[in-house]
Amino acid sequence: MSHFKLKEMERAYGFDEVALVPGDVTINPDQTNIDFTVGNSILTIPILASAMDAVVDPAFAIKFNKLGGLAVLNLEGVQTRYENPEEVLNQITQTPETEVTSLLQKVYSKPIKEKLVSQRIGAIKQAGTICAVSVTPANTKWLAPIAKDAGVDILVVQSTVTTARHISKSYRGLILPELCQQMSLPVIVGNCCSYGAALELMRTGIDGILVGVGPGAACTTREVIGVGVPQITATLNCAVARETYLQESGKYVVVITDGGIRTGGDLCKAFAAGADAIMIGSPLAQAAEAPGKGYHWGMSHSHPALPRGTRVRVGTTAPLEQILFGPTSVTDGTQNLVGALRTSMGVCSARTIKEMYKVKMIIAPSIKTEGKYLQAIQNTP
Amino acid sequence: MSHFKLKEMERAYGFDEVALVPGDVTINPDQTNIDFTVGNSILTIPILASAMDAVVDPAFAIKFNKLGGLAVLNLEGVQTRYENPEEVLNQITQTPETEVTSLLQKVYSKPIKEKLVSQRIGAIKQAGTICAVSVTPANTKWLAPIAKDAGVDILVVQSTVTTARHISKSYRGLILPELCQQMSLPVIVGNCCSYGAALELMRTGIDGILVGVGPGAACTTREVIGVGVPQITATLNCAVARETYLQESGKYVVVITDGGIRTGGDLCKAFAAGADAIMIGSPLAQAAEAPGKGYHWGMSHSHPALPRGTRVRVGTTAPLEQILFGPTSVTDGTQNLVGALRTSMGVCSARTIKEMYKVKMIIAPSIKTEGKYLQAIQNTP
Amino acid sequence: MSHFKLKEMERAYGFDEVALVPGDVTINPDQTNIDFTVGNSILTIPILASAMDAVVDPAFAIKFNKLGGLAVLNLEGVQTRYENPEEVLNQITQTPETEVTSLLQKVYSKPIKEKLVSQRIGAIKQAGTICAVSVTPANTKWLAPIAKDAGVDILVVQSTVTTARHISKSYRGLILPELCQQMSLPVIVGNCCSYGAALELMRTGIDGILVGVGPGAACTTREVIGVGVPQITATLNCAVARETYLQESGKYVVVITDGGIRTGGDLCKAFAAGADAIMIGSPLAQAAEAPGKGYHWGMSHSHPALPRGTRVRVGTTAPLEQILFGPTSVTDGTQNLVGALRTSMGVCSARTIKEMYKVKMIIAPSIKTEGKYLQAIQNTP
Amino acid sequence: MSHFKLKEMERAYGFDEVALVPGDVTINPDQTNIDFTVGNSILTIPILASAMDAVVDPAFAIKFNKLGGLAVLNLEGVQTRYENPEEVLNQITQTPETEVTSLLQKVYSKPIKEKLVSQRIGAIKQAGTICAVSVTPANTKWLAPIAKDAGVDILVVQSTVTTARHISKSYRGLILPELCQQMSLPVIVGNCCSYGAALELMRTGIDGILVGVGPGAACTTREVIGVGVPQITATLNCAVARETYLQESGKYVVVITDGGIRTGGDLCKAFAAGADAIMIGSPLAQAAEAPGKGYHWGMSHSHPALPRGTRVRVGTTAPLEQILFGPTSVTDGTQNLVGALRTSMGVCSARTIKEMYKVKMIIAPSIKTEGKYLQAIQNTP
Repeated sequence: MSHFKLKEMERAYGFDEVALVPGDVTINPDQTNIDFTVGNSILTIPILASAMDAVVDPAFAIKFNKLGGLAVLNLEGVQTRYENPEEVLNQITQTPETEVTSLLQKVYSKPIKEKLVSQRIGAIKQAGTICAVSVTPANTKWLAPIAKDAGVDILVVQSTVTTARHISKSYRGLILPELCQQMSLPVIVGNCCSYGAALELMRTGIDGILVGVGPGAACTTREVIGVGVPQITATLNCAVARETYLQESGKYVVVITDGGIRTGGDLCKAFAAGADAIMIGSPLAQAAEAPGKGYHWGMSHSHPALPRGTRVRVGTTAPLEQILFGPTSVTDGTQNLVGALRTSMGVCSARTIKEMYKVKMIIAPSIKTEGKYLQAIQNTP
Repeated sequence: MSHFKLKEMERAYGFDEVALVPGDVTINPDQTNIDFTVGNSILTIPILASAMDAVVDPAFAIKFNKLGGLAVLNLEGVQTRYENPEEVLNQITQTPETEVTSLLQKVYSKPIKEKLVSQRIGAIKQAGTICAVSVTPANTKWLAPIAKDAGVDILVVQSTVTTARHISKSYRGLILPELCQQMSLPVIVGNCCSYGAALELMRTGIDGILVGVGPGAACTTREVIGVGVPQITATLNCAVARETYLQESGKYVVVITDGGIRTGGDLCKAFAAGADAIMIGSPLAQAAEAPGKGYHWGMSHSHPALPRGTRVRVGTTAPLEQILFGPTSVTDGTQNLVGALRTSMGVCSARTIKEMYKVKMIIAPSIKTEGKYLQAIQNTP
Repeated sequence: MSHFKLKEMERAYGFDEVALVPGDVTINPDQTNIDFTVGNSILTIPILASAMDAVVDPAFAIKFNKLGGLAVLNLEGVQTRYENPEEVLNQITQTPETEVTSLLQKVYSKPIKEKLVSQRIGAIKQAGTICAVSVTPANTKWLAPIAKDAGVDILVVQSTVTTARHISKSYRGLILPELCQQMSLPVIVGNCCSYGAALELMRTGIDGILVGVGPGAACTTREVIGVGVPQITATLNCAVARETYLQESGKYVVVITDGGIRTGGDLCKAFAAGADAIMIGSPLAQAAEAPGKGYHWGMSHSHPALPRGTRVRVGTTAPLEQILFGPTSVTDGTQNLVGALRTSMGVCSARTIKEMYKVKMIIAPSIKTEGKYLQAIQNTP
Repeated sequence: MSHFKLKEMERAYGFDEVALVPGDVTINPDQTNIDFTVGNSILTIPILASAMDAVVDPAFAIKFNKLGGLAVLNLEGVQTRYENPEEVLNQITQTPETEVTSLLQKVYSKPIKEKLVSQRIGAIKQAGTICAVSVTPANTKWLAPIAKDAGVDILVVQSTVTTARHISKSYRGLILPELCQQMSLPVIVGNCCSYGAALELMRTGIDGILVGVGPGAACTTREVIGVGVPQITATLNCAVARETYLQESGKYVVVITDGGIRTGGDLCKAFAAGADAIMIGSPLAQAAEAPGKGYHWGMSHSHPALPRGTRVRVGTTAPLEQILFGPTSVTDGTQNLVGALRTSMGVCSARTIKEMYKVKMIIAPSIKTEGKYLQAIQNTP
């Protein structure tokens, strides 16, 4: 052939394609340490709740932090657009499938009210809870200072893909180093999914990155624009960026795997791939305390011209505490996520999250899933 | 083993097996340039409409070109065999599944009328539209001059597989260099799918190639004769041929990925694989303006002895303009194709189509599709 | 790890995992030559009909040979056990699914009658047809001489796996070199699927081998005993054995791919993998002339203690001639198999079967099949 | 990229992904030897029955050993917690799907009675049967001496993952070398699935290991905690550990593949991967003699906080003798497991289990399974 080379393509892996290998020593689950530190805050469980309206409202945020995790409130969702968000949420969950995207587009076109931003943050802070909120890059300059004044502890700047550099003619891009200086509180930015983008973000002075483009249950980014990196590979790459940056700067930036985690098994694999913490939406949308009342939808779902998401019926299955800590009689991995993590660590010879990074991982497409699949068909009447 | 070597086989990839990786810089979608130039014509969107009777009639061609793309009228379809093609189209769409292939075989055995060839081209030209038409190699010598006289702007010579050389006893093969000289207008030839065949075609003096054998939604070439190359690999190979030929001749021959594109995601990946433009059938057959009225069938479907296609029910979902430019409330990637391309380019750090060629692409079998699949089963009553 | 090495395993490929790449020259289908020579017999189509009771009876053998192919009559099936096989065949096709294996075990435990062996061969020969029959290794010494006396032209010695050497205490194994000398007519032996076994068989003086263990539609060898090699890899390996043996001996032993071929596409790929001819069962069981009346079952299906097969409902779809030569209105590759082969050869630059061996083949798991699959589910009421 | 390397991941294979290649010599099944020796006991078939309540009770153990195999009684199941286990078993099988995990959690929280331990072992020994029992590591110090006093022949120490070293604050870990000395009878330990863990276990002085984490039909370990290694790869690795240990110590420790075997095909592949024996649950739960009466559940199913298993309906299909030795009219590989093994060995040129280790194995994802799958869908009303 010619001396022009074919584009090289590497194989990327998702949760269903890998599995963990038990270690040579077993450890009692109660001997494991799963603390997660971001800025000055120490969380007793390394789990963040997604900044989605179906998952986090102020009440959920308070409860979730009491249980050890960190919930992120979406500052551009129904909570800051509506005095009475319950009403709107009810409307969303009660609208039929075929009309829900139009409804979401309408719902999310209402203006954000500064007063409500302050009010929602205030409600969370009043409970003595660590308060984290998310804003999109386009609104960061406007909303971040308001949030800071209202007492927020951690700022999350999040869109489908966020980079350190942005080219635009319509507005001057967000300058992350400036933001970090102005805010003087931990800033987490995302989402990204490659070594290069992660490293560039880390060099802006931020404290954490969110890893994950296209993997979430309520996200259709890959169908719509062809973009997406499976989470195991994305996390592996961003974790290498963390080590590189740590060596060049001495600063440890946390890597948070966000999206695509449905079961305890997925969660454990994310840590084995290098995550410091994980962020979940749909597993928590199943909690009795979740504002979505058994439904779940994505942040790109309401894009006025190119929506990239679907409303998913997840059902309400158990109280939040049971989903996190059990005990459970459910055997599909959707409950007792923390117990699953500790058990997995014990089986894999990992006393700490950092030791999980050394656990052997194999490529082993999930035969089990297919098994269920077959069964599902055979049971069809 | 013996010193005779086993045949070597390389792995080829299709749309569902790859994904794009976001870049290190994001670009506002409105900053991207997606112009496509063929001959002297500049199109504002790099999309061709397939030369299929269910997609393109003169009215559709006019509308599509006004929106920025280029529609190709099939000179050997119902438009040139029937004074009143509407009648025949109605018959095709109203015939039950089991009888439709026989009907198509009958419909397409009626003779082509030279008068209608001139008339259809005239109708398109009268609207001030760039007019492109397609002919098969066997009929090129007969129909190409008629088309030229009628004012056609771009000639497409297309069959399942077209090569620079053809061996036959029944008719002297089409000589492409002669054709190019005689016509003195842009000639696009296809389909092909390998480096060697593409390069040989380019050396005949043509201006564009169509890439794609066996991938279309309404095509069963692979089942029937075992032949087919998935589109990502086919496009990658033909794009290398384009660079090779550009270097040896100084001439840039455009590469058009034709077939198998169903969503915005597929479309974006075709560009990342090296396409200058893409040609689509079934996504446009869903337009309210499409003559197929919600159905779609392939060009090899009417072969009298060995049909290689099926009639597919695609439904009528939206006006053409909405399919191309949105806004949409559909989240599966079938609408706002141009918006999807620009968004994808922005996320992947590509300001131009040529910059898309440098975007990182990974091998990542589509887990999403399987997710939907499972859901489909569970919803079966 | 230790210095003991892990067992090495190579990847093997089946029909659905590969595809053919069009060549750089196209050839008119009517310019292709598909003759197949075995011994002194020249067949105008390189297709054998499987020695299965649902496919071949004397009348079918006569018709099939008139059309250019070679049908093999099973000398250990219902034709030689029953005066009136029609009756038994009716019983088999009318028995419910759950009882059919027991019935087959009973049906095939009736003794073979020497008189019927002679009679069936006589009937075929009387029509001026090339007569081929199959026997199992265990019965070869007994039945082969009777068949020879009755005028048989080609002898097929066939069981699930047949090797040049067999270890047994209960009977002295069949000595193939002796058999070949005694019979002095072409002997085809099978099945085998590896380079080593094929080469050893060739060295016994036989004229052809059947390739295929475990791939047939009515065969469950792989589930039951774990044994099986996908047909593309099996054919590739046995074709290398043919070239090796040709070089060492000067004798050309034909390689016949037997089992797993369902469509024209599969058939074309078998030739591209190195087959001289192919043997098919289920595609021919669909012929109006097939004795199985729309059903199909395997030769190991009637094993008294360990049956390895299932009865498959294939339906009666068309006359034999149409299945072989078309014309057809079916677009799934099950009709006009010869037309498909010639078209594929034309597209792939192959004038002869031997030129098919040079056609480029790629690894490309069948996306199309999955497409239909999805559709099948969505259409479920 | 950085000089930090990405975690390396090897591909692991399960039963459905490999197949055996026939050998160059065929051997009559009755010429094969499948004896299995553990300690001083010689079994005529290399099959162990899983220590699961749905599979083994004293009556089953007696019958199974008479037929040549070895059943393992679970000393921590219903047999030692309930005077009348039949009653509890009936309750388990009659409880609806949605409530069965809760019931199992309750059932298995009742205390183990020492008297019943002695009594169950006594019942088995009285019949002249080799008696094997299983205990978990946590209860080994307590229950092993009682079992020894009651006359047990073989001790199995089994949990999801057992290693030579265990870190715990709540109880001093089990010291395997001490146990082996105290018991002075064959000790089998499991489960493990890697070279390192297997080798470390072997060095403690034990006589056999159980290989398999996460593969069983009634096990959801992989979904819940992400851990699991497909059985072909796990067996291959542990077999290398056996050879390593044999060379360093002169002692041969048997490798028993436990879990995931559903058919004769799977069983044959386990031996080809290096197993000395295999342990099966669900295939035997289908026996008329099985206490589970057509149901099957796993040992981790009753975990009070994190159950990892499901109750599976397997049905009662045949007497135990027929499942092991046939004859059968079932063609899916679930009956005549011993006949299947001997036939497979004959086809693969293996006279003994050790010769099976040399049989060629290929990577060939099961197309057959998919075939059935498709059929299942098409048959959906």
